[in-house]
Amino acid sequence: MSQDKLGPFLQKNWIGSTDSYKDAKIVMVGLPFDGTCSYRPGSRFAPERLRLASWGLEDYSPVYDRHLDDVRFYDAGELEFPLGNTQKTLDVIEKNAKVIFNDNKKFLGIGGEHLVTLPAVKAAAEKFENLAIIHFDAHTDLREDYLGEKLSHASVMRRIGEIVGFENIKQIGIRSGLKEEFELMKRYNTVANNLSDLDAIKNKKIFLTIDVDVLDPSVLPGTGTPEPDGLLYRELAQWIKSLKDFDIIGADIVELAPDYDKSEVSTATVSKIVRDVLMIL
Amino acid sequence: MSQDKLGPFLQKNWIGSTDSYKDAKIVMVGLPFDGTCSYRPGSRFAPERLRLASWGLEDYSPVYDRHLDDVRFYDAGELEFPLGNTQKTLDVIEKNAKVIFNDNKKFLGIGGEHLVTLPAVKAAAEKFENLAIIHFDAHTDLREDYLGEKLSHASVMRRIGEIVGFENIKQIGIRSGLKEEFELMKRYNTVANNLSDLDAIKNKKIFLTIDVDVLDPSVLPGTGTPEPDGLLYRELAQWIKSLKDFDIIGADIVELAPDYDKSEVSTATVSKIVRDVLMIL
Amino acid sequence: MSQDKLGPFLQKNWIGSTDSYKDAKIVMVGLPFDGTCSYRPGSRFAPERLRLASWGLEDYSPVYDRHLDDVRFYDAGELEFPLGNTQKTLDVIEKNAKVIFNDNKKFLGIGGEHLVTLPAVKAAAEKFENLAIIHFDAHTDLREDYLGEKLSHASVMRRIGEIVGFENIKQIGIRSGLKEEFELMKRYNTVANNLSDLDAIKNKKIFLTIDVDVLDPSVLPGTGTPEPDGLLYRELAQWIKSLKDFDIIGADIVELAPDYDKSEVSTATVSKIVRDVLMIL
Amino acid sequence: MSQDKLGPFLQKNWIGSTDSYKDAKIVMVGLPFDGTCSYRPGSRFAPERLRLASWGLEDYSPVYDRHLDDVRFYDAGELEFPLGNTQKTLDVIEKNAKVIFNDNKKFLGIGGEHLVTLPAVKAAAEKFENLAIIHFDAHTDLREDYLGEKLSHASVMRRIGEIVGFENIKQIGIRSGLKEEFELMKRYNTVANNLSDLDAIKNKKIFLTIDVDVLDPSVLPGTGTPEPDGLLYRELAQWIKSLKDFDIIGADIVELAPDYDKSEVSTATVSKIVRDVLMIL
Amino acid sequence: MSQDKLGPFLQKNWIGSTDSYKDAKIVMVGLPFDGTCSYRPGSRFAPERLRLASWGLEDYSPVYDRHLDDVRFYDAGELEFPLGNTQKTLDVIEKNAKVIFNDNKKFLGIGGEHLVTLPAVKAAAEKFENLAIIHFDAHTDLREDYLGEKLSHASVMRRIGEIVGFENIKQIGIRSGLKEEFELMKRYNTVANNLSDLDAIKNKKIFLTIDVDVLDPSVLPGTGTPEPDGLLYRELAQWIKSLKDFDIIGADIVELAPDYDKSEVSTATVSKIVRDVLMIL
Amino acid sequence: MSQDKLGPFLQKNWIGSTDSYKDAKIVMVGLPFDGTCSYRPGSRFAPERLRLASWGLEDYSPVYDRHLDDVRFYDAGELEFPLGNTQKTLDVIEKNAKVIFNDNKKFLGIGGEHLVTLPAVKAAAEKFENLAIIHFDAHTDLREDYLGEKLSHASVMRRIGEIVGFENIKQIGIRSGLKEEFELMKRYNTVANNLSDLDAIKNKKIFLTIDVDVLDPSVLPGTGTPEPDGLLYRELAQWIKSLKDFDIIGADIVELAPDYDKSEVSTATVSKIVRDVLMIL
Repeated sequence: MSQDKLGPFLQKNWIGSTDSYKDAKIVMVGLPFDGTCSYRPGSRFAPERLRLASWGLEDYSPVYDRHLDDVRFYDAGELEFPLGNTQKTLDVIEKNAKVIFNDNKKFLGIGGEHLVTLPAVKAAAEKFENLAIIHFDAHTDLREDYLGEKLSHASVMRRIGEIVGFENIKQIGIRSGLKEEFELMKRYNTVANNLSDLDAIKNKKIFLTIDVDVLDPSVLPGTGTPEPDGLLYRELAQWIKSLKDFDIIGADIVELAPDYDKSEVSTATVSKIVRDVLMIL
Repeated sequence: MSQDKLGPFLQKNWIGSTDSYKDAKIVMVGLPFDGTCSYRPGSRFAPERLRLASWGLEDYSPVYDRHLDDVRFYDAGELEFPLGNTQKTLDVIEKNAKVIFNDNKKFLGIGGEHLVTLPAVKAAAEKFENLAIIHFDAHTDLREDYLGEKLSHASVMRRIGEIVGFENIKQIGIRSGLKEEFELMKRYNTVANNLSDLDAIKNKKIFLTIDVDVLDPSVLPGTGTPEPDGLLYRELAQWIKSLKDFDIIGADIVELAPDYDKSEVSTATVSKIVRDVLMIL
Repeated sequence: MSQDKLGPFLQKNWIGSTDSYKDAKIVMVGLPFDGTCSYRPGSRFAPERLRLASWGLEDYSPVYDRHLDDVRFYDAGELEFPLGNTQKTLDVIEKNAKVIFNDNKKFLGIGGEHLVTLPAVKAAAEKFENLAIIHFDAHTDLREDYLGEKLSHASVMRRIGEIVGFENIKQIGIRSGLKEEFELMKRYNTVANNLSDLDAIKNKKIFLTIDVDVLDPSVLPGTGTPEPDGLLYRELAQWIKSLKDFDIIGADIVELAPDYDKSEVSTATVSKIVRDVLMIL
Repeated sequence: MSQDKLGPFLQKNWIGSTDSYKDAKIVMVGLPFDGTCSYRPGSRFAPERLRLASWGLEDYSPVYDRHLDDVRFYDAGELEFPLGNTQKTLDVIEKNAKVIFNDNKKFLGIGGEHLVTLPAVKAAAEKFENLAIIHFDAHTDLREDYLGEKLSHASVMRRIGEIVGFENIKQIGIRSGLKEEFELMKRYNTVANNLSDLDAIKNKKIFLTIDVDVLDPSVLPGTGTPEPDGLLYRELAQWIKSLKDFDIIGADIVELAPDYDKSEVSTATVSKIVRDVLMIL
Repeated sequence: MSQDKLGPFLQKNWIGSTDSYKDAKIVMVGLPFDGTCSYRPGSRFAPERLRLASWGLEDYSPVYDRHLDDVRFYDAGELEFPLGNTQKTLDVIEKNAKVIFNDNKKFLGIGGEHLVTLPAVKAAAEKFENLAIIHFDAHTDLREDYLGEKLSHASVMRRIGEIVGFENIKQIGIRSGLKEEFELMKRYNTVANNLSDLDAIKNKKIFLTIDVDVLDPSVLPGTGTPEPDGLLYRELAQWIKSLKDFDIIGADIVELAPDYDKSEVSTATVSKIVRDVLMIL
Repeated sequence: MSQDKLGPFLQKNWIGSTDSYKDAKIVMVGLPFDGTCSYRPGSRFAPERLRLASWGLEDYSPVYDRHLDDVRFYDAGELEFPLGNTQKTLDVIEKNAKVIFNDNKKFLGIGGEHLVTLPAVKAAAEKFENLAIIHFDAHTDLREDYLGEKLSHASVMRRIGEIVGFENIKQIGIRSGLKEEFELMKRYNTVANNLSDLDAIKNKKIFLTIDVDVLDPSVLPGTGTPEPDGLLYRELAQWIKSLKDFDIIGADIVELAPDYDKSEVSTATVSKIVRDVLMIL
């Protein structure tokens, strides 16, 4: 047998991924779930497309002057979910996040829709005291429920606030929601317009959650609920870079719906955001 | 006030729809649910797009030499569902179907994914003894469960068989499934290759369910799980016409995912199938 | 009969629309005409798509801290036009606009191409003295004619200037036209770069016309004649907000061609602009 | 100057086109008009796209065992039309067709929408007695008018019948229309199901008009009003080949709307139909 | 460390692929090269997209009553090529094919463009005497050269004929080429219209090469040079099934260009053809 | 013969192009090559699409207050290349560029991929001493080789630097590359952030090369390797205008891949950039 004479082959994992779970500092897990999406579904396809698109990136980031190879992350693949059963899906995520946190690694979720953040935060809250959330999004996601459903991507921050306390949530880029949601934001002072607005959580353990619709739809048409007047890529990248000194124990990037952008620029853009987040974890 | 001097306006209902629920013989209900879809979601958008596309149809069918105006159907609109909660969604459909059957009208569901057929059949089975199903589809939909979920579009005919008896299901166009599903089909002799294969259910009350992926993907690219080697439009249309003398008490047309066919030909084709079904109800 | 036991149904009108023409302050009329479009047609489909897309909006605007429900507008539907006959089409629009103005309501046209503004302005000029125009556009639209045709979307502001006087037109965002058009703009001082440039018409009755190609094509690819170097959504939104204290008696939003943006972001963006305009009417 | 040392260059004309109007037997004229289109416009872009796509064809047809080079046709380019003015547009076409017929050449129109056939037939009827029409289409196009307009692509065959006599029209592929249109077809026996149905016009001068929506939408999604249950390419090609011995004095191919088929297969298919028609002219 | 507690994960290989090169009977190699493509490039993306799409297939084929699991094939991944250097690319393929043949396994190439067949056939011809080719294609691919280039996807069968002898090539579905190519086909009697036309090569070792543009463009719009009048999926599938008793030592499936079919039906269709070929190897 | 009575016809050349090579100051040559493209091919289609799109431009630029008619450029058409043979393709370009430079005209290349710049610069370097390069791009293009290939679009600036000296290259908009490429840029001080950074080459002959992926992907999705964080159209346009007083002897605009932006906004945007460059040549 001469298998070793074959090749050279292109790789099937994320660019820069290490082959060893054991040696990895960060574990990337695909979360292909979009079951509570209120408008346009399709974020289930984001993790596999981002993997393909990652090979359009360079391994080297001039902004961080660093290679992905040096980051030591492990691409574990996509989880398999029981379609149509929201609760069981969340349970699978929570179980996996717990394993990763217990192995003293950082969790990096690749959504899927925003509800996938809930079980990851639950697992983090079990492991870490003093947990706070940095939340990029166009939408408040603070509804009590959506048509009676408490487990919805439109309610995910409400559920998370019930776990970590709303005063421990900082929100960036919000521009759509109900009147009562904006009032809740005001009450708990969740809005962060600049870095100093994050001072209150500076010394906490941070879970970073980026709903990519925080970006302007011109930059990211491929998402379920595009909302005009968003951040440019540059603005989001600068925010991410400024978080370098926070103690981020986990993160996720959610709500890319690749099929709604046939130019695939949305996927390329989010793959670069994933690279940026890897650089600061 | 001079509201009556405005216009002329285009209509917002399906072409040929009557304005009166009371006088209608058939009630068309949109079922925008795609929560258990195992591959590509998006059939939730089918009902609203079909309504727009219906205005590209003529009101007159030369095949039936008949006008839609003469059919007396009422376009009730789309039901509103609690996203992410499969059971509650099915309950809403069942409740509505019951009202319609109890008013001695025929139910015409516009999916949405195939699982929406289950509550409609449940409601029908409560009203009618001797119920049988005529099922057009590329897929058997006879799985015991899908990744543990019993309520799945891949299991809908299994659930329905448990209600009406598998011997009362006749299937046309099937070309994909598990080995055990094909064995179940053989055991109960569900396959119909021509009209005489339907003789066994000729005198029953019929619920007709058309998963539009029974059509060849060249004819209908806009569906969640396209499967080559399907029926041509003409073949399906002839099947439908041949059912004219069956006692059809309800029907649905499911699994159109309009956004996957940017030419909108899929939507135009299904709108014509809906017209054909209206002609025989 | 149990029609009232059906539902709950999604609505078929614009989000936030009232059901009563009589009580409405504003009447929204769809104007699906694109007959003189010089490059890419398709704006005829804008009104029906905007209605669907409006349900992706929240009813509440945090910028205005106000609900659409409080605006009291009535979605009258789309007018039906004799295709290929430009003059008759304009006559239908003019007749409808007159009815609305005579009922002391505000007219809100949803194009369609830009020529639909002409009959609305004609109707307004008959009702109101002291009429002035605020005009957002990438193109001057001031041609004497287009290949000999005086009724063209490229000549609409020329025709309107002949009615209201060119000194009563203020133009924002213009970046394409013939040399003689730019000279005419200079002669009549039509260009407005900031709010104070509108002082001359501050006390007039205003008809506001927004050709959405005033936006940058990155923000709005779905239009007939995309022209680089346009406004961002935020810039247009701020302009609109700043017009709150003007006495706007009518408005229209034109030239969205939804099929040229398969991501449907263009339609989502224009639906938000419509919401913004509703907030200031 | 060394211009002759430049190159080799790709050509800007239709593949196989001769450079000489004088020596040409056939003159191809682009007719980029879609002003009366009742559903989806865009056929105005067909002539320029077909020219580009023609270079994906071989110059040689194995079916006819003949090269395009031997056909002696001249690609004159696209006519420029006054947009929004239907009558003037038709006048320009008529004038050009007359010049071509008077030079004893054959006219080959490349639409554009179907109304462009009317002025070409008018010009032909002036030159030739005994004119008959062979008409491929999904739609009857026999309406008295469309929303009051007598000049509409939905009425073009009615207008043409008034010129040449309805008994001199033979129609192939029709599957949509009003009841009264189908009755008119029956009255004048216009339907041709096979070659012998054309016997009555065998010895006449023939104008051949092909509305490409006669093809099935699976074969040709890129058209304004796709209608299921159409001809396959092979069926249309065989029909065309069977007309080889008719005395065809002019022809047109209309209603391709290239932007509705992003795969550009529709354009490729119609370019091959144009090649087929060139082979029999 | 608890890596084994993670999951369940979706797989990153072709559905049904074995993990062991050693135990495999068939080795699948992705060949992402499209450098000599004469019209629309993009077949380089076919192998990675087919892998994703394979998970939309069932593992079970009712036509063959067999599971992919039983086929024992190994998905080796995509080869990495030096872009812009045609010769070196072919060398890499040849080297890999030799290794596989020398390990007494069957080679299954997933193109890429058709020129990738040449090095595989070279490697096969070195290993096997009595080699013959079964060739599905819309195009003859028998040009002496393409604009002077002898290594072109339009010349691949000419080069292959020089190796195996043109009398050992059998071609199915050809409908486009130069006059001299059709003459060469006639001289060597290469055309196969039915199974008995393959009798002359019945006892030879067979390399099977399928250019997917043999299919009709309605079935497969996603290819570089779509050519109307092709095979239906069913016809190709029946041809493949009829080859079950031939001694096929290698095969490839080439010329899928996935990005030209945004519905992804082309990719789904080719993934099913790959499954069919796996069933007969 | 009455050929002169035909028309009026639309033109087949670039808007504003003169018919006379002899009188032209600038010669525009289409370079439809994308053979070494490392990610998404398709820039071969840019020249023909830009010609069509140029007719969506006005002939008049308000920014330069000048008409294209006054520029005296000649649209020579697209060169025909031997596909798959990179070296021969470059030779054809070099030969043509030499002819143009020797006729004392300016060369304006319309790519195609970026490697087409190499032969044009070679030809320029033979004619002009003191040559310098102004280079707009997202990528450094300074690799020694790409997978062993020295002739690659990823190495084009490296090859050019070897001809003109790296100190004579000024780069604008670069944001992606290998670490060693960024080090080379630093060593030779190639980065230009503002106009004064170009002082060192102010008195040299300039070849201007614009890789359109220098623009942000929101502005230009239609390119092979989209890279977030790019220039806005306005920024690029201002850069171009600021080069008016440089002695530019040749230029090219490369890497538009039109099919990846189905809205065609990318093509429209690049056509305006071409107009801008024509204004300063």
